Amino acid sequence: MDLSGVFPALTTPFAADGSVSLADLKHNLHRYNGTDLAGYVVLGSTGESVLLSREETDGILATAKEAAGPEKKLIAGTGAESTAETIERTKRAAELGYHAALVKTPHYYKPMYKPEVLIAHYRRVADNSPIPILLYSVPQFTGVALEPPEAAALSEHPNIIGIKDSSGSVQRVAEVIAAARPDFQVLVGSASTMYPSLMIGARGGILALASALPEKCVALYHFARRGQPEQARELQQLLVKASKVIVSEAGIAGVKFVMDQRGYRGGIPRLPLLPLTDEVKKRLIALLAALEPAVARA
Amino acid sequence: MDLSGVFPALTTPFAADGSVSLADLKHNLHRYNGTDLAGYVVLGSTGESVLLSREETDGILATAKEAAGPEKKLIAGTGAESTAETIERTKRAAELGYHAALVKTPHYYKPMYKPEVLIAHYRRVADNSPIPILLYSVPQFTGVALEPPEAAALSEHPNIIGIKDSSGSVQRVAEVIAAARPDFQVLVGSASTMYPSLMIGARGGILALASALPEKCVALYHFARRGQPEQARELQQLLVKASKVIVSEAGIAGVKFVMDQRGYRGGIPRLPLLPLTDEVKKRLIALLAALEPAVARA
Amino acid sequence: MDLSGVFPALTTPFAADGSVSLADLKHNLHRYNGTDLAGYVVLGSTGESVLLSREETDGILATAKEAAGPEKKLIAGTGAESTAETIERTKRAAELGYHAALVKTPHYYKPMYKPEVLIAHYRRVADNSPIPILLYSVPQFTGVALEPPEAAALSEHPNIIGIKDSSGSVQRVAEVIAAARPDFQVLVGSASTMYPSLMIGARGGILALASALPEKCVALYHFARRGQPEQARELQQLLVKASKVIVSEAGIAGVKFVMDQRGYRGGIPRLPLLPLTDEVKKRLIALLAALEPAVARA
Amino acid sequence: MDLSGVFPALTTPFAADGSVSLADLKHNLHRYNGTDLAGYVVLGSTGESVLLSREETDGILATAKEAAGPEKKLIAGTGAESTAETIERTKRAAELGYHAALVKTPHYYKPMYKPEVLIAHYRRVADNSPIPILLYSVPQFTGVALEPPEAAALSEHPNIIGIKDSSGSVQRVAEVIAAARPDFQVLVGSASTMYPSLMIGARGGILALASALPEKCVALYHFARRGQPEQARELQQLLVKASKVIVSEAGIAGVKFVMDQRGYRGGIPRLPLLPLTDEVKKRLIALLAALEPAVARA
Repeated sequence: MDLSGVFPALTTPFAADGSVSLADLKHNLHRYNGTDLAGYVVLGSTGESVLLSREETDGILATAKEAAGPEKKLIAGTGAESTAETIERTKRAAELGYHAALVKTPHYYKPMYKPEVLIAHYRRVADNSPIPILLYSVPQFTGVALEPPEAAALSEHPNIIGIKDSSGSVQRVAEVIAAARPDFQVLVGSASTMYPSLMIGARGGILALASALPEKCVALYHFARRGQPEQARELQQLLVKASKVIVSEAGIAGVKFVMDQRGYRGGIPRLPLLPLTDEVKKRLIALLAALEPAVARA
Repeated sequence: MDLSGVFPALTTPFAADGSVSLADLKHNLHRYNGTDLAGYVVLGSTGESVLLSREETDGILATAKEAAGPEKKLIAGTGAESTAETIERTKRAAELGYHAALVKTPHYYKPMYKPEVLIAHYRRVADNSPIPILLYSVPQFTGVALEPPEAAALSEHPNIIGIKDSSGSVQRVAEVIAAARPDFQVLVGSASTMYPSLMIGARGGILALASALPEKCVALYHFARRGQPEQARELQQLLVKASKVIVSEAGIAGVKFVMDQRGYRGGIPRLPLLPLTDEVKKRLIALLAALEPAVARA
Repeated sequence: MDLSGVFPALTTPFAADGSVSLADLKHNLHRYNGTDLAGYVVLGSTGESVLLSREETDGILATAKEAAGPEKKLIAGTGAESTAETIERTKRAAELGYHAALVKTPHYYKPMYKPEVLIAHYRRVADNSPIPILLYSVPQFTGVALEPPEAAALSEHPNIIGIKDSSGSVQRVAEVIAAARPDFQVLVGSASTMYPSLMIGARGGILALASALPEKCVALYHFARRGQPEQARELQQLLVKASKVIVSEAGIAGVKFVMDQRGYRGGIPRLPLLPLTDEVKKRLIALLAALEPAVARA
Repeated sequence: MDLSGVFPALTTPFAADGSVSLADLKHNLHRYNGTDLAGYVVLGSTGESVLLSREETDGILATAKEAAGPEKKLIAGTGAESTAETIERTKRAAELGYHAALVKTPHYYKPMYKPEVLIAHYRRVADNSPIPILLYSVPQFTGVALEPPEAAALSEHPNIIGIKDSSGSVQRVAEVIAAARPDFQVLVGSASTMYPSLMIGARGGILALASALPEKCVALYHFARRGQPEQARELQQLLVKASKVIVSEAGIAGVKFVMDQRGYRGGIPRLPLLPLTDEVKKRLIALLAALEPAVARA
C-alpha cells in the first residue's frame, strides 16, 4: 500500500447544538474529492477524536467512507490508551472498509512508556489488525516520541508500513529513514517541513493545513517530486508562515475558520477548545489575503 | 468539606481473564477501612482510569462506595478531555454518593490549553457539578500544569475547594497557598514531599504509595501534625526512598506488587502497562524488608 | 567545617565608570558584619563572576577577606569551565585565606558532561585543593544538574564537604541527604524553599535574597531551628513572594536595587544584564513597603 | 561578504604536556588548504575556546591566520559572557586580519536573557566591531536560542551579516530566512541537516564534522548546489549517521580521533572533557571503514 502524497487530517464539523454534523462532513469530502489529495485521514488529532464519543466516531467513520472518492486512500485514527481498545477500534475501522490505521502512541503513563513498552504495544496491535498499521508519533500533543530505533525495530513487522512523524524535525525523519526497512514509509505531520523532508526521502504528509489549503499542499508535493526547487522553496516559505499562524497558533479553531473562508464547513471546535477571538480572525483573514495570489497560482 | 489527612489513590484489581475484579477491590477497601486513612480516591491516575471502559468505571464507583467505611470521604476521578464528558462523569459520581470530584486537566491539545482555556473549563465544570471540585494538576502524566495564578483564580469559585498538586514541587505548593483563598485546600500527590509540604501549609496528600503502605503515610501525617520533627524527618526520608523505587520507578505495577506482598490484592496492570520483571520484583522485596521495622514502628 | 546558617551570595558593586567599586563592597560587608549571617559567598553567580576579569576577581577576593568580620566564614566561588583553571582559582582563594571553595559544575559542553565526567572533574579539583570543596548545582543557569547519585558518590571524598543545591527542589534535597555520607552538608540556593528544606535536613542556605534582606533570611533560619513552625511558615510565605519578585523576576538588578533601598550599595549590573525599568522599580518599592512591618518584626 | 559554502569549526590540538600545539594546528590547516572548504572558523565551540586562556587564544588566532590559504575566509569566535569583553575580543580578531566574527549568545544568566537583552547585546557588539558579525545560536551548549523574530530584528543592522544556527531545526532555518532581510545569510551548525537546509535557502554550514571529513561535507554542498538530488540524499543519509556517531555521541574527542585516523592531528581534548574509551574508538573505526568507499567517491 503506497502512501505517497498529501492527506488532509480531516476536521470534525459540529452543528449549532454541538452534535457532530455528518452532512457538513460529506460536504467537505465532496469538495476534497475534486483535488489531487491522495486520500483522507479520519479521526486524527485534528479531527478532535479525543473529544468524541464512541457513537460519534462510528458515524464519522461510516460517513467519510461513503463520501470519499473511490480512488482516495482511507486511513482511520484508532489509537487509544489501552492496547485492547486500540485493537478493537482498528478492527472496527477495517470492517468499515478503511485501508490503514493510524495509531498514535499511548501517552498518559509516560514515565512508564519505555521503548520496550511502546514496541510491545505496537506489535500486539499489528498482530491483531486486519489492516496495515501506520505508527503515529506526535510529541507536541502526547509528550511521547517514537525514537528512530523504535521506529526501525517496528518497521520489521510485516503489518507496520510506515510512520507519521509530527515532531517537525527533519533530522529525525532522516534518521528514521536511515534506520528503517527500505520500504518503510515516512509521512510528515507538518506542512512547515514537508519540502525538505521529501528531499531526504519522506513519502508525503498528513497535514492539518491540507484541510484548509489542500491545493497549496498538493502543489508543494508536486514541485518537490517534479524537481522544481525554486518553486518548491518559494511555496514552502509561504506554507511555513501559513502553518505557523493557522495551525500552530490558532489551532484546530484556526484550521476550521480558514475552511469557512474557503467554502468548506469548518465551524467551531468542541469545549474545552475555545472559538477564535476576533483579533485572531482578523489576522487569519489578512494572512489569507496575502496568500491568495499564491494559492491561485498553485 | 475538610480534606485533611491521607487518601490512597486506589488501584484497580484485574482478574486472571483481564476483567475488573470488583471482589478484590472490596477486599482491599475492607482492609483499608481499618486504618486512619481519611478516605479514598477512586479512578485516579493510579486506578488506571484511562484504560477502563465506561461500564467498568461505573462498576468500580458503585463497589467502592458500598465497601467504604461510613466515615471515609469519597472522591471520584472524573476528568475527561471533553468538558461535557467531564460534567457528565461528575454528575454520575454525585448520583452514586461521592463527596467530591477530582478533575485532572484536559491535556491532549496542550499547545492550545492556555490559562484562560483551563480556567473556562474548570469554571464550567464547577458550575454544573452537584458536588465540590478538587483541581488536579499532574504534569508528569499530562504535560500540563496548573500554575499558581490559575489555581488562585479558580479558588474564588464557591464550588472549587482545593487542588491535588502532583508536581512534586514544594515551592509551587507554597506559591499556591500564598496566592489562593485562605480556605483553599492543597493536597500533594507524592509521598516524597508530604512532610515539607505540610509544614508550609498543605492539608494532606492523595498518594499512590498509600495504597501499598497506608500506615506509614498516615504516621508521617501524624508526626507532622503533632509537632514531632525528628520522627517526621526520619520517616519522610524512608518514604522518599520507598516512593522513588515503588512509585516512580516501578509505577502502578510496583504499587500493585507491594500490595500483593502486604495482604492486599494488587495483581498486574492492564496493557500497554507491562508486569514487573523478576529483577524489579527482587528490588521491591529487598526494599520492603528494609522498611519493615520502620513500618512496624509506624 | 560547619556551614550551618545563612550566607548571602554577595553582589559586585560597580562604579559609575563601570569598574568594580571595592569601596562599595567594603561598605556592604561592614553592614553585613553586624548581622547574624554565618559568613559570605564571594564571586558566586549573584556576584556576576562570569562578567569579571581575572584582575577584578583578585581585587574582590582580597577586599572581601579584609572587610569580613573575623567570625564570618568565607567561601569563594572558583568554578571555571576548565578543570585546570578551577584548580588554579581554588588555590588562589586558599592563599587569600578563604575557608572553602564553591565550585559550580562545568556546563558548556553539556551533552558530554555525563555523570562520570562531572565526578572525575570534582575529584580532581578536590584532590588538588588546599581547602574544602562545596559542590554547586545551579541548573537554571548552567543547564546541568548534579543528581543525587553523583552527589552521594562525591560525598565520599574527604575534601568535599557539601553541596549548594539551587534546583529549588525540596525532594532533591531530601534525596541527596538520604544518599550521601551523614555529615555531608546540603545548603539550598533559594530562599523560597529554605524552611521546608531545613525541616528535612538541610543545614542552611546561600541566598541572593540575603544580600538584600539578610535579617529576614536569618530570622527564618532561627524560627526553623528553634521549633517555631507557625512563625516559620508565615515568614517563609513572605519570602516565597519576595524571592519570586526580587530574585527570579528582577534578577541581579533587582537584588541590587533593593539593596540600594535598604542602605547597601547595590548599583546596576554589568552588560549584557540591563538595569531595571521604572515599572519594575515601582513593583519592588511596593513590595518592600508591604514587607517592612515583617522585616521590622524579624 | 559571501559566506556560501562549508567551513570547518577547527579543533585545537594539544601537545603531550597539555599545552596548545600551534605546530599541529598549522599542519591541519595546510592539509585543509588543499580542499574546497570556503574558509575556517577559529575558536568556535569545537575549538574548546571556553577551556583556553587569553594567551592561548591569541596564539591560535595568529597561527591560523598565518597558515590559512589566501583565498580562505577567516571567521573568529569572539563571543564572551560580558558585552565589553566580546567587543574587545572582536576588535582583537579584526586587528589580526579576521574577516568576520562569530558571536555566540551570552548564556549564563539565561532567565534574564530576554529577547530585548540579547538584541541590545548584539547591537552594541555590532556597533563597535570593525568587522561583520555572524550571530551564533547554539542551544545544545548554551541553553539559549535566538528565535526567528530576534534574528530578523538583528538582520536589519548593517554590520550583522548572518547567523550560524546550530539548533538542528530545518523549520527554524526556514523561519529565519522568511523573517530576515533577504541578504541575511543563514549557515547551519550541523552536518545532519545541511542538505534540506540548503534546499530551503541556507547558504552553507559551519561544521565540526568538516574538521574530520571535509571532502564529504563539501561534496554534499556541491550536490545540492548542482541539482543532484539523488546523490545529495544518499550522501546526506551517510552524514546523518556519521554526524550522530562522531559529533553528537563522541563529541570533540570523537572529531579529534577521526582526524587522527585521516592524517590530521587531532589528539585528545582538555579536561573536564575525557578522552574516548576503547569501545567508542572501535565504533568510530568501524564507522570510518563503512564510510571509506563513499568518502573516496566524494
